[in-house]
Amino acid sequence: MMMRLLSSSMRGEFPWSIPPSSSSMVIPGRPGPGKSKLNHRNTLIRLWNFPTPSPPPSAAVSAIRHTRRSQPNLTLLHASNGKGGGNEERERVSKILEPTKEPQSYSSHKQISTFLDIGNKPEQREETEQRMASTAAGQVIRCRAAVAWEAGKPLVIEEVEVAPPQAMEVRIKVLFGSLCRTDVNFWEAKGQTPLFPRIFGHEAAGIVESVGEGVADLKPGDHVLPVFTGECKECRHCKSQESNMCDLLRINTDRGVMLNDGKTRFSINGKPIYHFVGTSTFSEYTVVHVGCVVKINPEAPLDKICVLSCGISTGLGATLNVAKPKKGSSVAVFGLGAVGLAAAEGARIAGASRIIGVDLNPKRFEEAKKFGVTEFVNPKDYDKPVQEVIAEMTDGGVDRSVECTGNISAMISAFECVHDGWGVAVLVGVPNKDVVFKTHPINILNGRTLKGTFFGNYKPRSDLPSVVEKYMNKELELEKFITHEVTFSEINKAFDYMLARDGLRCIIRMDG
Amino acid sequence: MMMRLLSSSMRGEFPWSIPPSSSSMVIPGRPGPGKSKLNHRNTLIRLWNFPTPSPPPSAAVSAIRHTRRSQPNLTLLHASNGKGGGNEERERVSKILEPTKEPQSYSSHKQISTFLDIGNKPEQREETEQRMASTAAGQVIRCRAAVAWEAGKPLVIEEVEVAPPQAMEVRIKVLFGSLCRTDVNFWEAKGQTPLFPRIFGHEAAGIVESVGEGVADLKPGDHVLPVFTGECKECRHCKSQESNMCDLLRINTDRGVMLNDGKTRFSINGKPIYHFVGTSTFSEYTVVHVGCVVKINPEAPLDKICVLSCGISTGLGATLNVAKPKKGSSVAVFGLGAVGLAAAEGARIAGASRIIGVDLNPKRFEEAKKFGVTEFVNPKDYDKPVQEVIAEMTDGGVDRSVECTGNISAMISAFECVHDGWGVAVLVGVPNKDVVFKTHPINILNGRTLKGTFFGNYKPRSDLPSVVEKYMNKELELEKFITHEVTFSEINKAFDYMLARDGLRCIIRMDG
Repeated sequence: MMMRLLSSSMRGEFPWSIPPSSSSMVIPGRPGPGKSKLNHRNTLIRLWNFPTPSPPPSAAVSAIRHTRRSQPNLTLLHASNGKGGGNEERERVSKILEPTKEPQSYSSHKQISTFLDIGNKPEQREETEQRMASTAAGQVIRCRAAVAWEAGKPLVIEEVEVAPPQAMEVRIKVLFGSLCRTDVNFWEAKGQTPLFPRIFGHEAAGIVESVGEGVADLKPGDHVLPVFTGECKECRHCKSQESNMCDLLRINTDRGVMLNDGKTRFSINGKPIYHFVGTSTFSEYTVVHVGCVVKINPEAPLDKICVLSCGISTGLGATLNVAKPKKGSSVAVFGLGAVGLAAAEGARIAGASRIIGVDLNPKRFEEAKKFGVTEFVNPKDYDKPVQEVIAEMTDGGVDRSVECTGNISAMISAFECVHDGWGVAVLVGVPNKDVVFKTHPINILNGRTLKGTFFGNYKPRSDLPSVVEKYMNKELELEKFITHEVTFSEINKAFDYMLARDGLRCIIRMDG
Repeated sequence: MMMRLLSSSMRGEFPWSIPPSSSSMVIPGRPGPGKSKLNHRNTLIRLWNFPTPSPPPSAAVSAIRHTRRSQPNLTLLHASNGKGGGNEERERVSKILEPTKEPQSYSSHKQISTFLDIGNKPEQREETEQRMASTAAGQVIRCRAAVAWEAGKPLVIEEVEVAPPQAMEVRIKVLFGSLCRTDVNFWEAKGQTPLFPRIFGHEAAGIVESVGEGVADLKPGDHVLPVFTGECKECRHCKSQESNMCDLLRINTDRGVMLNDGKTRFSINGKPIYHFVGTSTFSEYTVVHVGCVVKINPEAPLDKICVLSCGISTGLGATLNVAKPKKGSSVAVFGLGAVGLAAAEGARIAGASRIIGVDLNPKRFEEAKKFGVTEFVNPKDYDKPVQEVIAEMTDGGVDRSVECTGNISAMISAFECVHDGWGVAVLVGVPNKDVVFKTHPINILNGRTLKGTFFGNYKPRSDLPSVVEKYMNKELELEKFITHEVTFSEINKAFDYMLARDGLRCIIRMDG
């Protein structure tokens, strides 16, 4: 939302020529912290205004070449706002920032000029990708990362060393991230194994900076989503059409090191900083196993689709891939947080005619309407089990239910509220360790189905690109999930929002 | 098995001409009790020997016509053994018997000549069916029924009155039945609502004798399976592609009367005798709601396919329709009774490469091999949960499991023994009322699926004909389920076998 206003305000304001005296051009309306960072970085952000995916006007290309020649020490960052044909919805802004400082092993910070949205012609794409190839490949990169030194204590933006990717690893420049509840849970480390210092973050989008030995599917410049669970494409799970729980790269919240050598790629003055679920995207650069990196459509706006790395895909896939409601059917969604609303969004996309939202917080209902929720049930309002309330509302039960809270009572209710004969309940929310799911077996025998799902049954590398396309073709709406935006330096605000249950997703702009 | 030997022994022994002096012809090798019954009934059973489905030789037709003219008071019962082209497997014997006595309201017991296996030409079939139309239609029929007067006491063969079918009802001449555990459970009435006197029986095959008002899909002469659960084709369940739990005709073990008027169709001297699950097939004639009557291929041998009315279809469908194992997959079957072995048979048909049978009785394993069971696990042999044993045997769990015991521990084991990511557990066995299914929700969340099924998810009228065809085309083997055979007058022996857990299915021949 913020991005759209921003780019709208800029339309027509930028001439093709670049003022040679300016070492940076601050985009009007940009939040304060961005300004100094941009100046500090000796970086020019240049926003072009031409239709995407058409190639840039020759005037723009000439201006870039001129600037590169006249200001060789300047890092040029070009972006198109993708504005074409007066279609407001197509406005997008993409940009890329380079490392802030030169590490000791980083010989010279060379000029890199990148032109995004350059068009769809293969030769143009290839040229762009080649230009993207960082000369830091094989070298340690120093950059900013938000380090969690202790459980529950605010993250600290530190300068970290990011080692180059080893075999089957990819170093990614993270451009946008978002905060998911799982980050907060493991940062709080209540009930989880504490592992600190650690770099959290697992919802993000970025661009491949360099790749390690044996990486064939990805190359520098590829637009990617790092994902907390992987797809090795070799194990029984990956070879099964029915599972996405890769043996090699399945989520491991206790492991803080890379698989290849059991060591971290992050350090501060040589002291290792642990990884989190193999992604650690609260860093300007991160190293991820290639099996956890999803190559996506380079036209996709990274500041939106970054939310597809975890929660939104989890809820969406739970409905679309597992519950599979039919058009005109009824769906109950337990828990109207981001995952639950993504499940509702899935039901809306599937054409469900009744989407019943269940949440203890009545304030959630108003927002939930945007996601297709048609009715709201607050279990606190009744003196009987919510499954009975729903059965009465729906002549025996809903066709499908999706449980997104992880609360054991909600899980049981979600199962027992589906109609006998055909009802399918899908469990998504992760419970505490010491709970037990209990039901009378006749509830099962009467033709009900209970399914668990992990990451919406999406195989990350195989399936996520199609979810990005769902957004690109406007089937899936992501903007409504994005309720806050902070710069990287403000990342603790995102934690505050999450802890206050304020909003759904807070985008973290890594350039600020 | 018995039938095959019987018909083999007869090949070529019967000339086309009929000895005019005999009022009955007893088939050689027939068990003793059959002989007197046949004589008593003034019935001629005539076995023809010609290929099926070819029409009968003209000599046979002439002989029938001659006999009908010369012996008008004789009930003629013709059958072909279906022997064609030296193929032992195609040998079948079909026959039909008429009411033994004339009830008061039954004006005259007219000659009915029926020719089964008459061929597939429509005009021949129609002629046969018209000849089948009983003149008893609309009248009370007196016949033999096995009445349960008290819980747990031997059934008594009584002469009962069977009222004509009312609207949407069908009166069926039962030819073959078999005993299922559910009959025994409700006869014992331990934990169930006792309802006596009652006529049990729900696995059977027969021929439509007459139909009530509004019955359009069936006519006298149709070969049918009465089924304990129905398909009204009008309710939400019937209209759903996913359910077979018809709202109108779903199994109701407590109801002992017909839906139409809340009364019984059975009586003895005017005193009502209760129905059981709408079928009550332990009677030579029974009245069943049309929605519980499945019209099947008239070529199918009723003494084999009668077992498809309940248990065998339940187990088979649980695997084929619900668990759906892929070729080469592993399947665990809990409980190696008839239903469990039918589930194993389904796994064999589906091409499972490992079928692990789980039973507390090691004697079951030898027999289970015939049904494709490749490995056997007796939970008593281990000091750890059987799900762990199976997980170790299968590198993490089986692909599918089918639970056919109804024991709550077995249900939980059956769920927890399937592989994470893709495993599907299907519950079939009916539990006690006061048990609870318990598992840690992480077992569900890790990509497992738990499904309940009722009657193998078959919609009786829509789907059972195709199961009969599976037998006809030799995909499904039924003979191996049939371990005993008794005449109707010996029906209590079938109960003894079941109580002694001796064998799988005991066929009850209603003509003896």
